[in-house]
Amino acid sequence: MDLAFSALIVGAFVMAFVGVLAWSVTRKSAGTPHMREIASYIQEGARAFLRREIKTISYFIVALTALLWISLRWEIALGFVFGSFLSLLAAYIGMSIAVRANVRTTQAARKSVSKAFVIAFRGGAVTGLSVVGMSLLGLGVLYFAYGKQPSLLVGFGFGASLVTLFAQLGGGIYTKAADVGADLVGKVEARIPEDDPRNPAVIADQVGDNVGDCAARGADLFGSFSHSILGAMIIGLAFVGFYGYNAIIFPLLIGSIGASATIVGVLFIRESGRDLVLSLYVSYFVTGSICMAGFYGIAVWIMQDLALFYCATLGLLASLVVAIVVQYYTGLGRKPTRKIAEAAQSGAAINIMTGFSYGLESASLPLLLVAAVTIISYVICGGGLRGIYGIVTATMGILSTTGIIMASDTFGPIVDNASGIAEMSGLGGEVREVTDALDATGNVTKALTKGFAMAYCVLTAIVILFAYLSEVSRYQGIQLTSITDIVVNLVHPVIVASVFVGAAIPFLFSALAIRAVGKTAFQMVEEVRRQFREIPGLLEGRGKPDYSRCVDISTRNALREMIAPTLVALVAPIAVGFLLGVWALAAYVVTINAVAGILAVLMFNAGGAWDNAKKYIEAGYLGGKGTPTHAAAVIGDTFGDPLKDTAGPSLHVLIKLQEIIALTILPLFLTYAIIW
Amino acid sequence: MDLAFSALIVGAFVMAFVGVLAWSVTRKSAGTPHMREIASYIQEGARAFLRREIKTISYFIVALTALLWISLRWEIALGFVFGSFLSLLAAYIGMSIAVRANVRTTQAARKSVSKAFVIAFRGGAVTGLSVVGMSLLGLGVLYFAYGKQPSLLVGFGFGASLVTLFAQLGGGIYTKAADVGADLVGKVEARIPEDDPRNPAVIADQVGDNVGDCAARGADLFGSFSHSILGAMIIGLAFVGFYGYNAIIFPLLIGSIGASATIVGVLFIRESGRDLVLSLYVSYFVTGSICMAGFYGIAVWIMQDLALFYCATLGLLASLVVAIVVQYYTGLGRKPTRKIAEAAQSGAAINIMTGFSYGLESASLPLLLVAAVTIISYVICGGGLRGIYGIVTATMGILSTTGIIMASDTFGPIVDNASGIAEMSGLGGEVREVTDALDATGNVTKALTKGFAMAYCVLTAIVILFAYLSEVSRYQGIQLTSITDIVVNLVHPVIVASVFVGAAIPFLFSALAIRAVGKTAFQMVEEVRRQFREIPGLLEGRGKPDYSRCVDISTRNALREMIAPTLVALVAPIAVGFLLGVWALAAYVVTINAVAGILAVLMFNAGGAWDNAKKYIEAGYLGGKGTPTHAAAVIGDTFGDPLKDTAGPSLHVLIKLQEIIALTILPLFLTYAIIW
Repeated sequence: MDLAFSALIVGAFVMAFVGVLAWSVTRKSAGTPHMREIASYIQEGARAFLRREIKTISYFIVALTALLWISLRWEIALGFVFGSFLSLLAAYIGMSIAVRANVRTTQAARKSVSKAFVIAFRGGAVTGLSVVGMSLLGLGVLYFAYGKQPSLLVGFGFGASLVTLFAQLGGGIYTKAADVGADLVGKVEARIPEDDPRNPAVIADQVGDNVGDCAARGADLFGSFSHSILGAMIIGLAFVGFYGYNAIIFPLLIGSIGASATIVGVLFIRESGRDLVLSLYVSYFVTGSICMAGFYGIAVWIMQDLALFYCATLGLLASLVVAIVVQYYTGLGRKPTRKIAEAAQSGAAINIMTGFSYGLESASLPLLLVAAVTIISYVICGGGLRGIYGIVTATMGILSTTGIIMASDTFGPIVDNASGIAEMSGLGGEVREVTDALDATGNVTKALTKGFAMAYCVLTAIVILFAYLSEVSRYQGIQLTSITDIVVNLVHPVIVASVFVGAAIPFLFSALAIRAVGKTAFQMVEEVRRQFREIPGLLEGRGKPDYSRCVDISTRNALREMIAPTLVALVAPIAVGFLLGVWALAAYVVTINAVAGILAVLMFNAGGAWDNAKKYIEAGYLGGKGTPTHAAAVIGDTFGDPLKDTAGPSLHVLIKLQEIIALTILPLFLTYAIIW
Repeated sequence: MDLAFSALIVGAFVMAFVGVLAWSVTRKSAGTPHMREIASYIQEGARAFLRREIKTISYFIVALTALLWISLRWEIALGFVFGSFLSLLAAYIGMSIAVRANVRTTQAARKSVSKAFVIAFRGGAVTGLSVVGMSLLGLGVLYFAYGKQPSLLVGFGFGASLVTLFAQLGGGIYTKAADVGADLVGKVEARIPEDDPRNPAVIADQVGDNVGDCAARGADLFGSFSHSILGAMIIGLAFVGFYGYNAIIFPLLIGSIGASATIVGVLFIRESGRDLVLSLYVSYFVTGSICMAGFYGIAVWIMQDLALFYCATLGLLASLVVAIVVQYYTGLGRKPTRKIAEAAQSGAAINIMTGFSYGLESASLPLLLVAAVTIISYVICGGGLRGIYGIVTATMGILSTTGIIMASDTFGPIVDNASGIAEMSGLGGEVREVTDALDATGNVTKALTKGFAMAYCVLTAIVILFAYLSEVSRYQGIQLTSITDIVVNLVHPVIVASVFVGAAIPFLFSALAIRAVGKTAFQMVEEVRRQFREIPGLLEGRGKPDYSRCVDISTRNALREMIAPTLVALVAPIAVGFLLGVWALAAYVVTINAVAGILAVLMFNAGGAWDNAKKYIEAGYLGGKGTPTHAAAVIGDTFGDPLKDTAGPSLHVLIKLQEIIALTILPLFLTYAIIW
């Protein structure tokens, strides 16, 4: 039997399990009528946004499908539609379950921490698992449908990445504009608590958590996972000489094992009296061990190359070290956040300066680590062509644990929402304490997730680069026997120029994303100020705020502002490819990877550090809430918001999209490039 | 006669002219005894800092000279000492004249704008011209002394760049810590005007302008100018086949013509009733025209290749376009600064977000332009090896106008100081109006200068890259006949990893530079607050502030904090060279160039834009001074300070230093590299 069938079997099994999980969440009580009402506002807002977003995106999908069909092959075009559809479905499923899990978590929090924890985690696991499952199913089906030719899968990846970019930008702009708007007027000017129902932007803020964090993250994860599997499968073509047919299906096997191990890990999260963080670690450890065992088995029995096991282990270890680095630089009460908080004593400017500086520093280390992993895994496999497969395998090591890591990432926004609902329904005190405990757990997992995501993203990009290059040589009829069979000569001025272009695009792209948040937040602030001014008795709790105006501002702006950065991301690689040729495009892609990668880490970490510096002060240090020091820290935190939640994650998607475009449109570039 | 003698003749003539200029400035009246007293505080502080800075730097110089002598050749070691010495001398001359021109400008401002303008401009021209002159002399002398072997000049460039880095970091940390400290407590908390003598940090602030802007800029310019000449001379070696011996001395000729043209341009700045900005433009235009004419002559008669003239013109035009872009993004009252100012209405966070976003956007355009220049000048010269010389020539086009551009750059801090002295001596009203007019002129020239500096720096880096590569092939005994004779294959994982390292280092480097300012400013704020609190009657003008404590904080911290980033800049390229080999180092250098280049533009432009957004509000828009909107804009401006004046310019130097280290230590890397 073809081992690739395992992807279909595991995929189907995972989806069945997702159904059970979803059922186990939704059958719980949704609480009092008041809670249900609030939750229904959030559900409506989120659903309305997603519907309109899908409509906007579908124009692009239709146009691009037609173009791909005409200029390339029907398989690519069909794969593109299929990838887009599944990616949207992943976003939709993630969000649908999140907007149900939130209020149920609140309700459970009225009974015990442990019950609430399990509901929130399972809600997250639905997202994590369904995207892994759908990706395996989608890729598996196409692989067999297209006669086992991995090169034809690129359309699937393109579709997935494009949808992801839209979802990430739209959701990111939505959520941060609402968040910033709600905080700046509510917390700073009107001095009412976070998530206070008197704040007109509070529903938009809650909706934002869902469309930004859950839906976008679902699409993102779907893209990453599919991306690295199909990239590795294409590279596999060049390694049939080394490993036989198994070289191609190796990534599908790894993905299947990872998905299965994740199911076991999720089952380990049960109601108990244990410490929450400890429970999570146990679950990670179980999943990771199963993955490693599976990896060892595949390396020894199927690939018959033990070095691959070492490379995979190296990849996993590296992503763990990155996670520790991130944890150090952004962790509550660690030296950097403490220093940033202390700097706030001299005002917001020095607070921001210090945070920015730690962000820059923290960004450099993971990139150096990835550079080390690249070289070491290359050397472990003896260098040369096989060394390249070593790098691919290091990436697979991280891939296998995607499901469980991302399950705990989606856990965060569900908990966020749960505490929001608690606040708005007037369930203060004890319930709030429970949700705060969950929130703290969420912060720990976030650091871990970000570390993994970053190492994973950049290493995947290297995999795709080699996939691209091996495709170039395949089209040129070169049988790869050595690494020097393909040459991208950095001495050539056109290549040097492409490096410059590659460095410039991430800056332009994030400029547009950040400004979109600034603009929208500005409008939100004006609207919230207006409502406080014009609606009689609003601040005293007698008037009723007009939530829908705020929801509308976020929705309209997010949908409009997500277009420009996406166009940059679409046009730039196509322009480089047609103008400067395929070699230049390779240099462009490498640089995008390095520059967008490091910019993203800067933004994640600086944003996270400002956030936790503020929380450190709120915990009562340096005078606590209400002091000028706290006000200064809030400014830093607010500046960091669009960096860490809009531009940062979008940059990750940018990297993927650039590479998959290069890979998909390659045949046209080879034929029609102008200069070189 | 050897045409290279022209460098010596022109160099000597320029230095003589500098003497006359300096005399013409210093013979002017230094004003009232009170003004002299204040000026003497500034002179003392600046001289003391420079002395201590030279002492610190000299340890490094001695150690590195010994290392170079032992491991390479005595010519390199001697050149290193010579380059360091001249660079320090350039810094010293620039500063000595600046601390004299400032008070004389104030005094002249009591009579007329025009008189003050001429003194300030001539003070700046002393710096601009003396570094150009010394560079021509130094390089010319070494060239003949070392038997006309340009490859032996690298030590000179290394010494110059190392000193520059120290001067830029030390000066940049000094000036911004003092500035931020003075502003945060003085302007924001105590609400006293800028440069008020009651502010304990005011003298440190003035000293900072001199050691940061004048001395550092002098060293910087000296480094850039020497750097691009020697790089182009080394490349020339590979082009003797095309252009004969002239290929080598071509850059010296261009430098000589530029220096001569600058003298004429400086002479065009005279006392007159004309508009100041117009006067400057006339002077630029005259200088530029002479340069272009000279260029045409050299291209046609000496090099006998008209295409070179086109390339040089292209380079000049490009730097002009970059200047226009910079002017657009940072100009007072242009759309970006207006939008940033408007964003301040919603608080500091959205102000900073918007400025950061425009900064990111503005950074991408110049880099794209440089990429275009690289490709177009390559194509103009017909591609291939000659195409490389086209790129070199485009850089020379900018080089020729360095003197005049930099003269007007040093003009800025002199004027700054002049208005500070006016304020402190109680010469309010009319004098202040005059210095404000000069200040506005200074802001126009700054945008121009930055545009030129950026295009120049990045293009020079490309020149040095090719110099490096042609040296590699020379050491390996390869006679270059085609561009494909040297291969830096981007497909190799070690090269990919080096791209990552190259992207990481500028982040780490600027992290250290920015944090140094944050830390020092924090201490400064505490000290100024302490003095206001503890010295009786200080705020009422009865007590006398302890200026020297503040000067001391800046001095001590600047000298300590400049070490760590310098070590990063020294160790990183050496580690890459020895660990990963010469090809990896080439990839590292290209990436550093792109990434540090774009980061620097981001920092320059965002910083400038925040500054002018604040000035826009101070001009009375959006409520003017004293409003919350203004306070928010001040926070943005303060955050921008270390970006635009410490990290930004230091990143430029970082680029140069990385490349000259690669070039200097190349023989050792070739012999002892470990992995590749």
